[in-house]
Formats: sequence, structure tokens, C-alpha cells
Amino acid sequence: MRHRLKRFVLRRSPKAGLPPGTLVHIGEHTREITRISILDFDDGALREQEAQGSSECRPYKDSPSNSWINVDSVHDVKLLRELGQDFGLHPLVLEDIVNTDQRPKLEDYGEYLYIVVKMLSYAGEALSVEQVSLVLGASWVLSFQEQGKPGDVFDPIRTRIRSGAGKVRKRGADFLAYSLIDAIVDNYFVILERVGDRIEALEDELLTNPSQVALTTIHHLRREMIFLRRSVWPLREMLSALQRGESKLVQPDTQVYLRDVYDHTIQVIDTIENLRDVLQGMLDRYLSSVSQRMNEVMKVLTIIATVFIPLTFIVGIYGMNFEYFPELKWRWGYPALWGIMIGIVALMLAYFKRKKWL
Amino acid sequence: MRHRLKRFVLRRSPKAGLPPGTLVHIGEHTREITRISILDFDDGALREQEAQGSSECRPYKDSPSNSWINVDSVHDVKLLRELGQDFGLHPLVLEDIVNTDQRPKLEDYGEYLYIVVKMLSYAGEALSVEQVSLVLGASWVLSFQEQGKPGDVFDPIRTRIRSGAGKVRKRGADFLAYSLIDAIVDNYFVILERVGDRIEALEDELLTNPSQVALTTIHHLRREMIFLRRSVWPLREMLSALQRGESKLVQPDTQVYLRDVYDHTIQVIDTIENLRDVLQGMLDRYLSSVSQRMNEVMKVLTIIATVFIPLTFIVGIYGMNFEYFPELKWRWGYPALWGIMIGIVALMLAYFKRKKWL
Amino acid sequence: MRHRLKRFVLRRSPKAGLPPGTLVHIGEHTREITRISILDFDDGALREQEAQGSSECRPYKDSPSNSWINVDSVHDVKLLRELGQDFGLHPLVLEDIVNTDQRPKLEDYGEYLYIVVKMLSYAGEALSVEQVSLVLGASWVLSFQEQGKPGDVFDPIRTRIRSGAGKVRKRGADFLAYSLIDAIVDNYFVILERVGDRIEALEDELLTNPSQVALTTIHHLRREMIFLRRSVWPLREMLSALQRGESKLVQPDTQVYLRDVYDHTIQVIDTIENLRDVLQGMLDRYLSSVSQRMNEVMKVLTIIATVFIPLTFIVGIYGMNFEYFPELKWRWGYPALWGIMIGIVALMLAYFKRKKWL
Amino acid sequence: MRHRLKRFVLRRSPKAGLPPGTLVHIGEHTREITRISILDFDDGALREQEAQGSSECRPYKDSPSNSWINVDSVHDVKLLRELGQDFGLHPLVLEDIVNTDQRPKLEDYGEYLYIVVKMLSYAGEALSVEQVSLVLGASWVLSFQEQGKPGDVFDPIRTRIRSGAGKVRKRGADFLAYSLIDAIVDNYFVILERVGDRIEALEDELLTNPSQVALTTIHHLRREMIFLRRSVWPLREMLSALQRGESKLVQPDTQVYLRDVYDHTIQVIDTIENLRDVLQGMLDRYLSSVSQRMNEVMKVLTIIATVFIPLTFIVGIYGMNFEYFPELKWRWGYPALWGIMIGIVALMLAYFKRKKWL
Amino acid sequence: MRHRLKRFVLRRSPKAGLPPGTLVHIGEHTREITRISILDFDDGALREQEAQGSSECRPYKDSPSNSWINVDSVHDVKLLRELGQDFGLHPLVLEDIVNTDQRPKLEDYGEYLYIVVKMLSYAGEALSVEQVSLVLGASWVLSFQEQGKPGDVFDPIRTRIRSGAGKVRKRGADFLAYSLIDAIVDNYFVILERVGDRIEALEDELLTNPSQVALTTIHHLRREMIFLRRSVWPLREMLSALQRGESKLVQPDTQVYLRDVYDHTIQVIDTIENLRDVLQGMLDRYLSSVSQRMNEVMKVLTIIATVFIPLTFIVGIYGMNFEYFPELKWRWGYPALWGIMIGIVALMLAYFKRKKWL
Repeated sequence: MRHRLKRFVLRRSPKAGLPPGTLVHIGEHTREITRISILDFDDGALREQEAQGSSECRPYKDSPSNSWINVDSVHDVKLLRELGQDFGLHPLVLEDIVNTDQRPKLEDYGEYLYIVVKMLSYAGEALSVEQVSLVLGASWVLSFQEQGKPGDVFDPIRTRIRSGAGKVRKRGADFLAYSLIDAIVDNYFVILERVGDRIEALEDELLTNPSQVALTTIHHLRREMIFLRRSVWPLREMLSALQRGESKLVQPDTQVYLRDVYDHTIQVIDTIENLRDVLQGMLDRYLSSVSQRMNEVMKVLTIIATVFIPLTFIVGIYGMNFEYFPELKWRWGYPALWGIMIGIVALMLAYFKRKKWL
Repeated sequence: MRHRLKRFVLRRSPKAGLPPGTLVHIGEHTREITRISILDFDDGALREQEAQGSSECRPYKDSPSNSWINVDSVHDVKLLRELGQDFGLHPLVLEDIVNTDQRPKLEDYGEYLYIVVKMLSYAGEALSVEQVSLVLGASWVLSFQEQGKPGDVFDPIRTRIRSGAGKVRKRGADFLAYSLIDAIVDNYFVILERVGDRIEALEDELLTNPSQVALTTIHHLRREMIFLRRSVWPLREMLSALQRGESKLVQPDTQVYLRDVYDHTIQVIDTIENLRDVLQGMLDRYLSSVSQRMNEVMKVLTIIATVFIPLTFIVGIYGMNFEYFPELKWRWGYPALWGIMIGIVALMLAYFKRKKWL
Repeated sequence: MRHRLKRFVLRRSPKAGLPPGTLVHIGEHTREITRISILDFDDGALREQEAQGSSECRPYKDSPSNSWINVDSVHDVKLLRELGQDFGLHPLVLEDIVNTDQRPKLEDYGEYLYIVVKMLSYAGEALSVEQVSLVLGASWVLSFQEQGKPGDVFDPIRTRIRSGAGKVRKRGADFLAYSLIDAIVDNYFVILERVGDRIEALEDELLTNPSQVALTTIHHLRREMIFLRRSVWPLREMLSALQRGESKLVQPDTQVYLRDVYDHTIQVIDTIENLRDVLQGMLDRYLSSVSQRMNEVMKVLTIIATVFIPLTFIVGIYGMNFEYFPELKWRWGYPALWGIMIGIVALMLAYFKRKKWL
Repeated sequence: MRHRLKRFVLRRSPKAGLPPGTLVHIGEHTREITRISILDFDDGALREQEAQGSSECRPYKDSPSNSWINVDSVHDVKLLRELGQDFGLHPLVLEDIVNTDQRPKLEDYGEYLYIVVKMLSYAGEALSVEQVSLVLGASWVLSFQEQGKPGDVFDPIRTRIRSGAGKVRKRGADFLAYSLIDAIVDNYFVILERVGDRIEALEDELLTNPSQVALTTIHHLRREMIFLRRSVWPLREMLSALQRGESKLVQPDTQVYLRDVYDHTIQVIDTIENLRDVLQGMLDRYLSSVSQRMNEVMKVLTIIATVFIPLTFIVGIYGMNFEYFPELKWRWGYPALWGIMIGIVALMLAYFKRKKWL
Repeated sequence: MRHRLKRFVLRRSPKAGLPPGTLVHIGEHTREITRISILDFDDGALREQEAQGSSECRPYKDSPSNSWINVDSVHDVKLLRELGQDFGLHPLVLEDIVNTDQRPKLEDYGEYLYIVVKMLSYAGEALSVEQVSLVLGASWVLSFQEQGKPGDVFDPIRTRIRSGAGKVRKRGADFLAYSLIDAIVDNYFVILERVGDRIEALEDELLTNPSQVALTTIHHLRREMIFLRRSVWPLREMLSALQRGESKLVQPDTQVYLRDVYDHTIQVIDTIENLRDVLQGMLDRYLSSVSQRMNEVMKVLTIIATVFIPLTFIVGIYGMNFEYFPELKWRWGYPALWGIMIGIVALMLAYFKRKKWL
């Protein structure tokens, strides 16, 4: 819980007061070494390289073949500054790459497009988010992943490039950028499926055993849905802008694909809304079933108390020790009292019956 | 309940990582064999055929007469790929036909329009949804139904085409597409009527016997309304776009009909909103009547307890066994006690009366 | 209540599957005979006629004087079809006249404008709605009233035409159409006044005697407000379109009058919102006063129980029959016990006082 | 309360059915005599006059100096009709001046602008509203006040005109109209201050003594805020239209002043929203503190009852009169029982402690 | 609390009735002396001066180098009037500088831009707000701070100007104005971090010890969030207008920086929304855990009462003193009664078990 909240308000305070364009990584510090992996390809050829520094990446900028330079983890500020210089990136772009609490957005710098997307994954039970920055140039794509975890959602694209399957080898850098965004958006469905499974499990649990734990889980999932929504919502606007194709870097025949990933984003948002409604409904039903339960408990208490409190009073009367107490001496006093008490109970039960309390 | 939720988040995970345009059916797998039925007609002639494969459909594409090719169930990926090739459909269109969790939408591919609509039906108590994809070409309409159930909402149109009733034989393919959408939207009214009937029955039940079951049903119907709304809402925008007639495939005199079905969609949305308000009102009234009831129960408990607890205390006093206990020896002790107790009860009842608790 | 709900979802199912433009009246069937009354007038002359069929109306279409043809009740499908043919109405217009669950709307068919408005009235306690369709031609207005009740809101206009009071005789058919809409909108204020009166009465009742009945009435009025709002809201958009004067059938000097009725509509919507807020506030206050009341009841119970339960325990002790029970033999045992019990009560009351429970 | 509600739905029913433009005053009838006061001024000269009828006002219409004709109370329909004729006002303008339940609005009649604003004041504890209609001509302003109370918000402007302070003498009629609107809007801040003071007093009261009365006051203030909001909200749009300066009657250098009063209106709306949020927060806190309080009460009841009910049962046992009852004869029976009872209480208190109920 | 509320409705009443453009400071009166500090700089030179009056500032207006004239505290109305005259400011601008309850806004006066921003800071536990007015001329920036506290957020910019770090020395006055706004917006993140820390601490507290105090703090923080949102929200629109660069005072290469600070503002708003959702969730969870707790308490009460009330009745029976009472003489009466009572308890516990109340 605490972990989640931290992420909502990342520590930017060390940055306050510094001039704009200063690079200070404000996300969680990971210990992994920064890895730069380059895939240079065209329809015919493929070249793969692990680079040690920006100087090894530089030549790919002006090569006619498409180049995908992926940078894993963004805390090596020096390296980023060099890459920025070599690829002509604006200081504010570098600042946004490093400050990993950006919203998804698209910025058109003429020579290149700067795109921010959020990659989601489950680390155990907790939903974790990672900022992915894409810079789309004429024949190159730079991608920056906040944390460089092995086995990420870009692996299938790497495989496709290596094997030449799909269209990615035949198309330009814009199609590569589209493929990367598409992979991230497709992964949202996997996340949502998992959330859906948890909700279903929860629903079963609520029906059989409505506990405080389930309530906490519902609240937790609602918070996750809010979080998800915030990560995905701005994507919509961003893809809509990208798809309108105002940049010459995006070719017309890529636009129909961008419309497709835009559609997927709308579906993701729709599903999130659905799940939120389902969670809200579960919460409502849980709360009303809890209050219903309490009402039943109350009713039993009332009936027991209402029946026995007067009876206890009556038997209390004949437990008194007055010397002049005629009833106590009557021959049929005791059985008659039983008769009276049974009569009172019968009347009361009839009253409750009429009131529909039984 | 579980069934419903499943549908909110369809399993797309097998698809994650595959290149765009890959055909993997992600809906529920039905066991029925795919059926292709062709109706080729113009004002004078009519030809009806059951096709075994795409090759038998191909000739109808360029025939001058109007052709309606209906494909029942969309899990035969191979067949769809052939149809796609024969009719020149974009791979993304085929992908959307197969992935049956699309929102209603309209996509203009120049040569043809791709339209997604949701067909609703009641399978027993549960509302079930089926994706219908329409592809409208110059003189042909392809329609893809997710599940091919006998006796669907298109039957009256088939009858009209066969008998030559109405205008559908006299008009072009765009009017046929309109008729199909109109049939689907008209069917929403039937669904809403049934929901309305259930709500009325529920209202009666709530008045006579407000039970936990009724509450569950209200929550269930609310969820269904949310689901309905999501299915119908995007239709509005889609029909509005279609009606503006930007595509040359839609003829001007069909537009007034499209405006009519657009109006119907607004009415459907309006009715859904109405029913949601009614359900919300029922829920509010149910909850407040439950709490009202509990208050009454509480009041009875309070009055009984408040009256008898002090009396029981009093009779308890005179049940004590102290040796020096003067009252017990008094001649009129017992009757006097009755007098005192009756006085206390009278005072209390007067107090309750004044407080309006009785 | 049931009656109201029925109207929310009118039975359209008999219509499902029929071709568009088929006339099937789906509203409530009234038994009255269809009446056609014609008022033909210009500044100088006036002619009044009760027509038996469409053929008698036909001549008024092309006469230079203004004609108002009012049709009471719309279930005579045959008559409507003839009128449609004689006045050149589109089949979809006829369908909308007959299907009386249309939203208020404006449709421009070039030769004529088709306008749907909702007329509201109180039938006893229940708010009832009636669809009024207006067709505005060059020099004629057709008006269709769902049910032909005597003494409707159009009577003052008839009187004004007959007497030549006001401007209606001096102006064209567009001014007549405006007058009809104005009469309907003015009547909304009468309805709202009545609702306002009922709310005031309710408020008094709630203050003096908050009962379950009042709660039901609040819920009922809220539903009525929702219903009213749905009937009036689309009128706003419709009058706004009409007032912009895009149709050549509406003359420029009528537009300032249309702006006036548009203003009235906004006032009606405003008043509805006001009344809804007032009702919501009453509901909130009612519920919180109910819960406040229950808290008071609880407090009394708690105090009575808390005071007497320990005392009853104490007197119970000295009611025990142990043989070796020294206190029972003490000379001042009984009075001392009274002292102790009074002390306990005093302490408790002081505690409650400090806790502000008294 | 009742007074307030009346105003929400003014009696328009006497007007229903009358032709548009008929003058029937529908507000509260005040007994004061209508007063017409004229201020005619330019940079140099000033002339002040009390007019008896419209004929005395007429000459000011075409005089080159600026004239402000203020009409106090609007129930003298005859006078208004004459003024309307003399100043060329449209019948619908006169109708709106008389019907004092208009929303704030701006209507451009070419020759003059018709402006409706709401003037607010506190009559004792109740917020009261008064409609002010302004008609801005080329060199004259007509202002109509619903009720003519002495000491209104226009007095400072009169003083400024008489003394020549500020810019109002040096500028045209549009600046005068602006000054009048500005005075009304400035007065809203005074109203809001007073509401703010009452809320502060209420907050103190709620902290020290949360009573039912405070709750009623909160609900009352919320209703007042809703009422205020409705009075001010349309002003925003109206001033925005006025400031855009589409009318030639508003000179360019007045527009910056109109932007200023527009800003003030936004601030008023903002403050209203703030106060509503504050009230909502107070209500939430009040309700949750009430329920918190009740929980505490419940806890005390539970603990007392849970501790003493079993003990009372135990002492009841030894109050039984069985002949064969061995414990009663035991020498240490009575002290042992005390030991057992103290043990039970200790166990229970430990349990409650662990459960954090104490 | 009271302090906060005061600020919502600042006392403007002394101003009501005064002509527009009159300078009356309406914020809190601070006792500090007004300080004017001037920084005049270009790429090469730097001059720093503390001015005593407007006359010393005047020369900087037309100097070619950039000048930043910062005025600390705005209650010296005379000084402001002189500055206004010397720098050609509109009276309404001066009025807005002095009336410190403006919303953030941008006003273009051609020769200069007038910008209002809100600077936030924590004074102890309470969030305090200060209005900062910026006037951006061709080569000068006037900044007015409501209260002149030492150590404000502009200090780092002063340091940067003095040391020549960053771009501020190399750019024009527009970049300086941007830097000031950026510093204020960056400071919002610091505020939000602090709020985030308090929320985390609160969350821990709620989990371990849900008290009334925590509830009050949640309500307090919610109000602060509402307050923050109102301060920041209009900034968005304002920066959006500034960034579109319609004023010639803002150079094109500053626009990308303005887009960056616009992005930051959106992030701030986003974070505020997040924190509000988190607070709402905490409140919901708190309330439902409180009601859950109460239900548990109720259950214990019910079970104890339900078990012992009938038993107490039974032992009451055998405490009666009837002379003819056969059971009392039975040899096994007492042990048999124990058996019956144990049986009743067992039955009841089994019932509760089945009902899942245990």
C-alpha cells in the first residue's frame, strides 16, 4: 500500500530550484547497469550490437537502414546527455526521459517526435509502472526503458525483426515505433485479464464468505483501477494526435495501424470503466448485505428480548418475599402463571407475525 | 454472474506479442459449423445459395445485382482469410471481425465501409451479446455473425427480400446494410421491454415482500443496464457519422432512413437511462425502507426494555432476603407496589407519547 | 406507479421486424373517435370546419390563407396514411406520428418542418404525457394530438384566432406553429406550480410528522421530475435549432418570438433542477432526521439499561438463598444497600453528563 | 423556508393562455408607488428629475447627454407600456421586465441591448432576490428594479455622478450600464462575506455543540448556495458575450472594464463553489461524528450488558428455591461465588481490551 | 480551521461602492515594510539595487538590458500608484495586484502582459497562499509578492542570475518571467510531497489505531486538496494561452519551455486528483471499517443477550415463592435444570453457528 502511494508523489524536491533542463533522475534507483542494444535492419539485412556508449550509436543515426536503439534504465545521466547531443535532442526531452513521472504524451520537435508511454506489469501482487520514452527520427527509433527487466513486452518484436516475420522489417521507423506502442497496449489486456481473474475470485469469496479482507481487496483493486485509468487515459489523446498524421515522420499507410492501436486503447479504457463499475457494484452489494445481516441480528435480539424481558419481570414478581401475598398461597397459582405466560408469548408472536418480523 | 464477468475481459493474452493482423478468434468457441448463405437480388430477380467456401462467393462481388453474403460464426480463420483476399479486405478488418470484443464503430476504407454492431439477446435469464460485422461494398454486403443461432433478427429481412415486400429489393446495398442495422436496433426495444417487465415484477415484489433476493436482482439489472449502455452508446456516434453521408457508398435518399435509426438509438439510450434511474430509485427506496423498518424494530425494543427493566429491578428488590426489611411485613406492601409500578409505566408511556415514539 | 413505468418502455415488439415506414400505433389505445378540426383564416376572414376524411383537408393545402388542421388521437392509421399522401409527408414522419414515444425533435424535410413536442397534464395524481406532432408547411400547420381530450392547452389559441385578438391572425403559419409550442411550454409552468405546491405541502408534513408515506411521495416526485426533465430537455436543443432560422419556412420576425419560448424552456429546465435540488435536500434532511431520532432512542435505551442492569444484578445478589450469607443478617444491610445503589446511579449520571449523553 | 420555495416556482398560471407580449406582473406585489428618477449628465452639466410619467422621460431619449432613467418597482403595467412605446421597446422585452423570474441574460435588439441581472440582499435572515432589467441605448440607460427599496446598491453610483468622482461622468451610457452591473456584482461579495461569517459561526457551534438545529442551518445554507449559484451562473455567459463587444453600443475602451467585472463574476462563482464544498465537508463531518458518537454509546451499552447479564443469571441461580440445592449449604459458597464472578468480569475485560473495545 | 475559512471569503465589503480602479488592499495586513529589489542584467553585466521608491525604478523601464523589479508586500498603495504611472499600468491591473484574491489569469494589454499566479507554502501545519503578480514588458519584469517572506522560491533564480548559471542571463525578459512561473510550479511538487507524506503517515495510523482525530485530519486534507486544486486549475488554461504565443512579448524559443511548465501543471493537477482519490478511498475504508467494527460489537451483544436472557427467565421461575410448586421438591430438580439450561445453550450456539454469526 505504502509502496503504491509513494509512486503517486515522486520525490521531485531535490530538483526544485534547479534550472530547467537539468538532468536528475527522480524515479526509484535500480542497481542494474545501463544496457544499450541496437538492432539495425532493412528488408534484406540485419545487424545486432550491444553498445558501450553513445559514440557507438552515433553512426546509426544517418545510416539509411532502420535502427532501433533501446536503452535499459535511465539513471546514467552522463550517457543520456551524450546521446542527447549526438541525436540532437532538446534538453527538456532529456529531462522528461529522466523524470519518470510524465503522463503519456506526444511532442513534435520537427526533426523527431518524442513519445511517452507507460508500461505496466505485475511484480508479485503489486501493479508496477515503468515509463517508456520513444524518440522517432527519420530512420531511427530511440527507446528508453525506466528499468531494464529481462523478458519485457518488446521481446516478441525483437524476435519478429530477427526472423523477418510480420511487416516490421519491410516498413520504416514509424512502423517500428507503432509496433512498440502496440506491444505495450496489447500488454494492458494481459494486465486487465489478471485483474478480471482477481475480481472473479473475489466475487466468489464475497458470496460464500464476506470478510473484512475481501473489502480491503476491493478497495485495493479500485485504487489500482484509478491508477490504470490515469496511465492509459492520456494515451488516447496522444494516439489520436499521432494518427491524424500531422507529422511527416509518420507515413500515410501507418496511420490505419495507428487507428487500430487507438481503437485498442479505447477498448482498454472501456474495460477499465467496466471493471470499475463491477467493483463499485460489488462494494455496494457487500455493504448492503452487511447491513442486511446486521438487521437480521437486530431482529433476533429484539424478539428474544421482547419475549423474555416481560416474562422475567413476571417471575420476578412471584419471587418477592412480601408476607401478605395472597397469590402465592393459591392452589393453582403456579400452573395458572404458566398459562398466562404462554398466552403472552403467543400474543407477542402473533404480533410479530403480523408485523412481518418473523 | 461469473459468465457475465468473463465477457467483460475476453482472453486476448494468447494474442499478445503476435504481429498486427494475425487472426486468432478470442471469443467463446462455438461448435457449430460455419454457414455461408448468399442472397443475390435486384428488383426483378432473386437467387439464393448456400456456399461451401470463399470461391463460390467471389463471383457475387462484381455482379451488378445486390448480394448479401452472411457468414454464421467467425471461428473458421482460414475461410475468413480467403474471403478477405477475395473481397480485398484489410488485414486489420479481418482481425476485428475475429476479435469479437470490438466496440460499435465505423471505418471507411474507401472501397468499402466496415461497420461493427452488437446484437443482444436473452439466453434464458442472462443477457448475451454477439458481435455483428458488416462490410458494405458497392453492390454487396458481407455480414459476419459471431455465433450462428437459428431464428435471428435478420429473418424478417430475409423474408422481405424473398417476398419483395418493402423497399429493400428496390434499393441498393446501402439500404440493405441500413435494414440490417435497423433490425438490430429494433431488437434493442424488445430487450428493453423484457427488462422493463422484470423491473415491474420486481417493483411489485419489493412492495409486498422486500427480500435480499430482490436486492440481488436490482444489482444484477443495474449491471445489465451498464452493459447495455456500453453496447449501444458508441452506436450513436457511429450512426451520426454514417448519416452525415461522407461516404459515396451511402446514397442521399438512404440518409433520411439512417437519421431515423439514429433517432431510435437515441431513444434506446434514453430508455436505458430511464430504467437506470428507475432502478436507482428502487434501490434507494428499498434501502430507506429497510432502515425505516429497523428503526421501528429498535423502537419496540427500546420501549419494551425501557418499561420492564426498571420494573424488574423493583421486583428484584423485594425478592431480597434481608432479615431487617420492614416493607415486606407491611399489610399493603404488595398492592402498593403494584400501584407504584403501574404509575411508573403510565409516566413512561406518557413520556414516549410526548416524544412521538409511539 | 406501475402505470408510469409502462410508459417508459412502450410496447414496440409488435413492430420489430416490420419494414421501416410501417404504421402501427404503439401508444395506449384510446377509444375516442378521431376528430379533424380545421381553422382557415387570414387577417380578414375565418372559416371553421369539422372534416370527416383527408379529402376534405386537401384543398386547404394550397389555399393562400393560413390553415390549421388539428387531428385528435392518432390511432386511425388509414386516415393518417391518406393525410400523408395528400400533404406529401415522408413515410418515416407518419411512423413517428404514430409511435408516440418520440423525443422532442425537429426535422427539416425542405417542403415542411416536422416537430415533436410533449404535452403534459395531470390526470388526477398522476402526471401524464401526450405526444403532439406539428407539421409546418408554407401556409398550413398540421397538428396531431395523441389523445383528443376536451379542454386542452390549445383552446386559448382557438379563441384568439376566432376573436382576432393577438397577432396570430395577422401572421403566417410559422407564427401559428410558434403559438402552439408556446402554449405547450406555458403549460409546463402550470405543471411545475402544481408540483411546487405538492412539495410545499410535503415540507410542512415532514416537519410536523415525518412518516414513511412522505418518503414514498418524495421518491415519487423525484421520479416525476426525472420524467419531466427528459420530456423538456431535448426541447431546448430543438428550439435553438428552430430559432437559428435555417429554414425558409420560419420568417425572420418570428425568430425573436422563438427566442422567447426558448428562454421559457430554459426557465422550465432551471425550475425543474431547482425542484430536484429541493427534493434532494428534503430527502437528505428526512434521512438525517430519521437517523438523528434513532440515535436519541438509542441513547435513552442505553441510559436506562446502563443504569438498571447493574442495580438488578445487585438486588439479585441479596435474593440468593445461601445459608451462610452474613450481609443478610446485618441490621443496616437493607438501608445501606439503598445508599450504595443511589451512589452508583449518581456516579453514572455524572459520567453521562460529562460525556454529553444527557 | 416556505417563503423561499414559493419564489422557486412563481405563479405564472394566470398568464398561461394569454398571447405573448401580454404584460401581467407575476412577482410578489409590493405596495410602494412606482418612482421614476432621472439623472441626465455629461462631463460638465448634471440635471436631476423625478418624473411622473413616461412623457417626462421621452425627451431624454434623443438628448446628446447621457441619461439614466431608473424605474422603481415594475407592477405599474400601464406606465411600462407607455415607456415601451416611447423608447421603442419590443413587447417581449416589456413582458420580461414584468415577469421577474428571468435568468440573467443579454438580448441584442440592434437599437438597444436588454440586460437582466439579479440583485441579492438579506432581508433579515432570508436571502431575497430582486430582478434588475437594464436597457442600454445610444445615450440612455433605462433601469427597472423589481422592488424599489431605499438605500440600494446603486446609491454610490448616484453619489459619484453627482460629485463627478470616478470616470462615469466622462464616459458614455455603456460605461454607466457597466457601473450598474459592477455595483450589483460587487454586492455579491458582501452577501458571500455574510454567508461566510454564518458558516464560521456554525463551524464553531458544530465543534462545541453539534445539535439538530445546526444541521438544519447547514441544509438551509446549502439551499441558499444553490440558489445563489443559479442567480450568478448565467451572468458569466452574459458578461462574456457583452465583453466580446459585438454590439456597437459598447465602446472598445469599456471592454476592459467588462472583462474586469467578468473576472469578478468568476470569483463569485468560485467562492460559491468553495462555500458549497465547505458546507458539504461540514455536513460529512457532522454526520460521521454523529455516527461515531452513536458507536461509542453502543460500545458502552454492550460492555455493561455483556458484563452484567451473565452475572445476573448466576445470582438468579442461587435465588432458586429448590429443596435439594447442595451449594446453598456450603460454608464458603457465598464468598466463592464472589470469586467466580470477579474472575468472569476480569476475563471479559481482558477480552474487550484485546479487541480494542475499551 | 477558522483561519482557512477566512481566506475563502476575503473582506471586500469596504470596497463595495467604490469606483473601479480604486486601490484598497483587501488581504491580510502584514507589518513588514515594502521592499523593492532590482536585478538588472544582460549576458555580460549585472547590477543589483534596493530601491526606495518608484522613481529609482523608472530608468530601468527603457534600458536595453533585462530588469527584474521585485516588490515585496502590496499594502503600500501609494507606491503602487506611482509604479503604475511610471510603467504605464492600467488602473484595473493595479486594483488586481492589491486585491489578492484573484484567480490565476493572463491579461494581454498589448504593451505588457499581466499574469497572476498563486504561490503556496506551509506555515507550520497550515497551507498558506500568496498572490504573485507578474507584469512582463519588453525588457522588464515587475513581480509583486503579497507578503515578503525571506527565503522564498525565487531565491534560486536570483542565485542563477548572479552566478550566470542556466540560460536566464542569455535570454530575454520573457524567459525570466517563465523562470519565475516555473519556480512557483516546481514548488507545488514540494507541497504535494509533503501532503503525500502526511497521507502515508495517516494511512499507517488508520490501520493501527482508527481514531476520530484521523478522521478530522482526512477531512482537513480533503479541504486542502480542494483549495490546492482551485489555486492550480486556472493556471492550466492560463499557461495554455501563454504558450500559444499570441503575444509578441513571448519569443518563439521560449514557447517550448512554456509547454514544459504547462506539462508540469497538468502533472500537478493529476497528482492532486490522485491524492483526492486516495483520501476518498481512505475515508471510505475508514467508515466501512467503523461500521464493520460496530457490527461485530452488535453481534457479541446479541449472542450474550440471546443466550442469557432466557436462562435468567428460567432461574427466575424457580426463584418464585409459590406454596404449591412441585418441581422445587423433586430430588433431581436442580441438576435436571442445569441439564436443560446447558441443552438450551448448546442449541442456541448451534443455531448461531449455522447462521454464521459466530
